[in-house]
Amino acid sequence: MVVKVYGPAFASPKRVLVCLIEKEIEFEAVPLDLLKGEHKDPEFLKLQPFGAVPVTQDGDYVLYESRAIIRYYAEKYKSQGTELLGKTIEERGQVENWLEVEAHNFNPHIYNLTLQVMFSSKLGFSRDENVIKESEEKLGRVLDIYEERLSKSKYLAGDFFSLADLSHLPFTQYLVGQIGKEYMITSRKHVNAWWNDISSRPSWQKVLQLYPAPL
Amino acid sequence: MVVKVYGPAFASPKRVLVCLIEKEIEFEAVPLDLLKGEHKDPEFLKLQPFGAVPVTQDGDYVLYESRAIIRYYAEKYKSQGTELLGKTIEERGQVENWLEVEAHNFNPHIYNLTLQVMFSSKLGFSRDENVIKESEEKLGRVLDIYEERLSKSKYLAGDFFSLADLSHLPFTQYLVGQIGKEYMITSRKHVNAWWNDISSRPSWQKVLQLYPAPL
Repeated sequence: MVVKVYGPAFASPKRVLVCLIEKEIEFEAVPLDLLKGEHKDPEFLKLQPFGAVPVTQDGDYVLYESRAIIRYYAEKYKSQGTELLGKTIEERGQVENWLEVEAHNFNPHIYNLTLQVMFSSKLGFSRDENVIKESEEKLGRVLDIYEERLSKSKYLAGDFFSLADLSHLPFTQYLVGQIGKEYMITSRKHVNAWWNDISSRPSWQKVLQLYPAPL
Repeated sequence: MVVKVYGPAFASPKRVLVCLIEKEIEFEAVPLDLLKGEHKDPEFLKLQPFGAVPVTQDGDYVLYESRAIIRYYAEKYKSQGTELLGKTIEERGQVENWLEVEAHNFNPHIYNLTLQVMFSSKLGFSRDENVIKESEEKLGRVLDIYEERLSKSKYLAGDFFSLADLSHLPFTQYLVGQIGKEYMITSRKHVNAWWNDISSRPSWQKVLQLYPAPL
């Protein structure tokens, strides 16, 4: 069964796409225009009642929330493609730790920057320079902690690439690209080496090439 | 090895406490006064660099982020106590789905209500009635989706109690208690039945009895 992935142009669905490529799982991307509100269409709300992407559909098995989906496929196809959950329960614990840090410490600030800098005019509100400044400062403090962590291990959860790293790809790509704040990465030696490593993986380059950002 | 759990008076650490009790894992609670800023002490920051609770310490194995910790212990002690991750990979996928819904759709609004209604004066800022109103409306819309879901399955991830349900306990307890908005639960038939079921579990009653809220 081919896995359908809804909303490939957008950042959160790209977590799923890069994961499926790393796991060598066949999939079909189903475009959805969030800027036209297609994620609020009644048919789509039957799949995802909160009206958000990504959604995956695998026969009649439906999942949503990008970080739930990547955990599911990384576990279901554990022995296929790249191991993304660590080799032991203790390694997986660290993967979970840093996947949650991404979701709760890193993402809120980078998401605010994305919304303000990239999408405000498209979504019809004016950018708020105070929110941008505050988000940048808070993200900087998070990246200082990442710098310390990455001075001790090559990747976030340890010396192995995992879902915890992969989950940072889509929004950090905006940060160094369309948001124009590459300095936040390049000014931190270990964060920069980590970013160069994970963003040059063939899986991620393939996602960027196949599914251009909406802006 | 006894698992140390930091910050038992507060809501997020209670996710961990109730999970450890369900899994019949021995633990020791280490009090921490967040209202005095003890989570920002240098010694504590060595354990949790972002300065937040909970943290668990199991010998020299340290974890943070409540939803990472509960996943780790539910997996490590899979065959002990209550099964909290479902029996199959597909059931676990649904647990992950609804655990992420709790984190990203439910928690932001109930957390805002908690902060505004319970903690604003203690933390030295005045409550913002607009934030309260908006959070209540948004939480109501999320609970409408829960009502629909819980009309089809007894628990969020299916017909089995799991981490997805458990993760809702601490902040929903505030909602029906100190926040004073019990009507949001009781006015929704299936949500109400679900809440009565999960909140009456002996594990949760034990947590409430042993570790009173700070306010």
